Amino acid sequence: MDIKDYMAALGRGARAAASDVAASSTEQRNAALLAARRRLDQAREALTHANEQDLARGRSNGLDAALLDRLALTPARIDTMLEGLRQVADLPDPVASISDMRTMPSGIQVGRMRVPLGVIGIIYESRPNVTVEAASLCLKSGNATILRGGSEAIESNAAIAACLRDALTEVGLPAAAIQVLDTPDRAAVGELITMPEYVDVIVPRGGKGLIERISADARVPVIKHLDGVCHVYIDSGADPSMATDIAINAKTQRYGTCNTMETLLVAQSEAATLLPSLASAYAEHGVELRGCEQTLEIVPGLQQATEEDWHAEYLAPILAIKVVADIDAAMAHIATYSSQHTDTIVTRDHSRAMRFLREVDSSSVMVNASTRFADGFEYGLGAEIGISTDKLHARGPVGLEGLTSQKYVVLGDGQIRT
Amino acid sequence: MDIKDYMAALGRGARAAASDVAASSTEQRNAALLAARRRLDQAREALTHANEQDLARGRSNGLDAALLDRLALTPARIDTMLEGLRQVADLPDPVASISDMRTMPSGIQVGRMRVPLGVIGIIYESRPNVTVEAASLCLKSGNATILRGGSEAIESNAAIAACLRDALTEVGLPAAAIQVLDTPDRAAVGELITMPEYVDVIVPRGGKGLIERISADARVPVIKHLDGVCHVYIDSGADPSMATDIAINAKTQRYGTCNTMETLLVAQSEAATLLPSLASAYAEHGVELRGCEQTLEIVPGLQQATEEDWHAEYLAPILAIKVVADIDAAMAHIATYSSQHTDTIVTRDHSRAMRFLREVDSSSVMVNASTRFADGFEYGLGAEIGISTDKLHARGPVGLEGLTSQKYVVLGDGQIRT
Repeated sequence: MDIKDYMAALGRGARAAASDVAASSTEQRNAALLAARRRLDQAREALTHANEQDLARGRSNGLDAALLDRLALTPARIDTMLEGLRQVADLPDPVASISDMRTMPSGIQVGRMRVPLGVIGIIYESRPNVTVEAASLCLKSGNATILRGGSEAIESNAAIAACLRDALTEVGLPAAAIQVLDTPDRAAVGELITMPEYVDVIVPRGGKGLIERISADARVPVIKHLDGVCHVYIDSGADPSMATDIAINAKTQRYGTCNTMETLLVAQSEAATLLPSLASAYAEHGVELRGCEQTLEIVPGLQQATEEDWHAEYLAPILAIKVVADIDAAMAHIATYSSQHTDTIVTRDHSRAMRFLREVDSSSVMVNASTRFADGFEYGLGAEIGISTDKLHARGPVGLEGLTSQKYVVLGDGQIRT
Repeated sequence: MDIKDYMAALGRGARAAASDVAASSTEQRNAALLAARRRLDQAREALTHANEQDLARGRSNGLDAALLDRLALTPARIDTMLEGLRQVADLPDPVASISDMRTMPSGIQVGRMRVPLGVIGIIYESRPNVTVEAASLCLKSGNATILRGGSEAIESNAAIAACLRDALTEVGLPAAAIQVLDTPDRAAVGELITMPEYVDVIVPRGGKGLIERISADARVPVIKHLDGVCHVYIDSGADPSMATDIAINAKTQRYGTCNTMETLLVAQSEAATLLPSLASAYAEHGVELRGCEQTLEIVPGLQQATEEDWHAEYLAPILAIKVVADIDAAMAHIATYSSQHTDTIVTRDHSRAMRFLREVDSSSVMVNASTRFADGFEYGLGAEIGISTDKLHARGPVGLEGLTSQKYVVLGDGQIRT
């Protein structure tokens, strides 16, 4: 079949299924999640077999070790997948809750009801566990979803899709509520992101290159973050031990995550006392430092940071360090180089803390806490489909609420407008 | 100057001004609004003179009477403009308010702070009063704005812009926080909607054609509604007098507004008793009726409604009427033909009321109230920049809150992630 026709058929199916899912009860959607859990558990052998085919093809195509690792559906990963389904079933249902109900002078009552977005397209790389994770969050929030995973995982995803489809049918929901693309054709992505009549929003998950391409070509709104160039600013007069703990944790707790600090800004007044001990602590963790001129004067022998370093999302044990005059210089640096993901100030000064919170235009802004906390679970959202640095709709970690919208509901007893 | 360079210069100016406006105090922004009010009041003569130039050119270009009427800055319209500025100054400031603050198990406190969107582009037709209205809402909500009014109003808008600019400067805010395009070149719109680096969101106000073109070409998110094909469904067993009042009010209170009913759906059980008296009431208002076959059997002599009528936004004293079997048929009709603006059920049945609220996917869904209530003022938003039928970000009447976003704020006392 022509790829345009194939995608349009998928889209029509998803659009039709979306109304049924939106109108379904919490119990029905939770039952589908638990049925999916049971069916995936029973299908462990089939999943492993399908995954082995993907892995074998990947090896013969020369995929690198990191990619093969992400592709692998180990028994432990399957366990985590199943546990995730149970957790999502346990989350409160955001759909149809009414809030902010107020009686207006005309006598009408006006409130807002949370409603699903409709059809959500997810584009991701070759990590089959994401198929279950994303599908479960979309279903729980009353949406239909079309999933497009990396072509390297096509057999694994097909095996997972069969379980999800059967679970939907089992509880009386349309199988088209969760559709997994079964074509490796890259043109399918191009179609998916340009069908606003069938798809309400695209959530891309993956590298910056993938997300940039999708954002540039999409005719459907995209919820995304491109990269995480996160900063910690150690303010003048900051508690040195707190500053050290946060600066070390924000960089070294994990290197490959988007909320890891990539540039450390240090107020001039603290630089001479803090930087030498920080440099030794980073050295113990094997973190390579790249400093501005002033940093190099205090910690000789470091590589000098270039303009590129201030822009860099290393995702690796490398850190750029800059000495700044004060909070204004720190915020100016952040305004220029931050990817508006997560930025932290370590300070004892209340008014500077409040200025930082107010004026730094990032999706998460923190006082005296590690950037590593920017995460749906740590924020109490229960789950996370991604982190958004966009300004419209959702900003910061996106949980079930970010997969819904609010419509106005009006209750009257015959009011007319005069 | 080349139009691309001109627009990029405007965009850079707006982007730079946006941070200052976002960081400004409530008092400062209110002072700017009141200064604008005073300056516009003092400039009445200059405004009228500029407007007369626009009107004279419009007349010699053969503009129709309705367009000339909208273009006219009468003394009464200037009064309304000034009163609007005072009202916007009096509204609560949404910027920087923190909500939903919760302490998480890690000890961090997580909340959400309301922040301006940044730079808002407004594209509208030749109504100079919209310049003041839109600029004031954007300024109050901490945003910079670039306004592009219809070229017929270019002199009037320039005169208004001078007052707004002087008011900003007077209170120490950058004049670039409100910029009004002074070129009639249509290519400027094309630039404005494709500069995501400078513009965060576009709000188009005008006819469906204009908004469709903008949405199709925009590379910046658009907050919009295309049209208002609104329905009233009179349910089986509805109170006949309430049903009549609402059906008459929703159609006849004003014909040209987007929340006016365009199609009336009547449950079969009520049709024979209700339609004859409704038809006479509409006849008294001079409303032309177009009915389905069943309607014509009950009220003979009407024009038969065609497929086009179910899609029509008449904005005129014309109404399409359809008899439907029950609420399911009514909701199926609405799902097919509604523009997802505003739909109402008139009913005495609680469970059908709740089904309608839940299942009708429109930006406003009502029970026992006239569709004409779908409006920012009637909903208590204090003001309205427009009504959105989009699903992302804002749905329904959009007030100051819709011109803002929320970022996460985290307060810690040294927490690190383990």
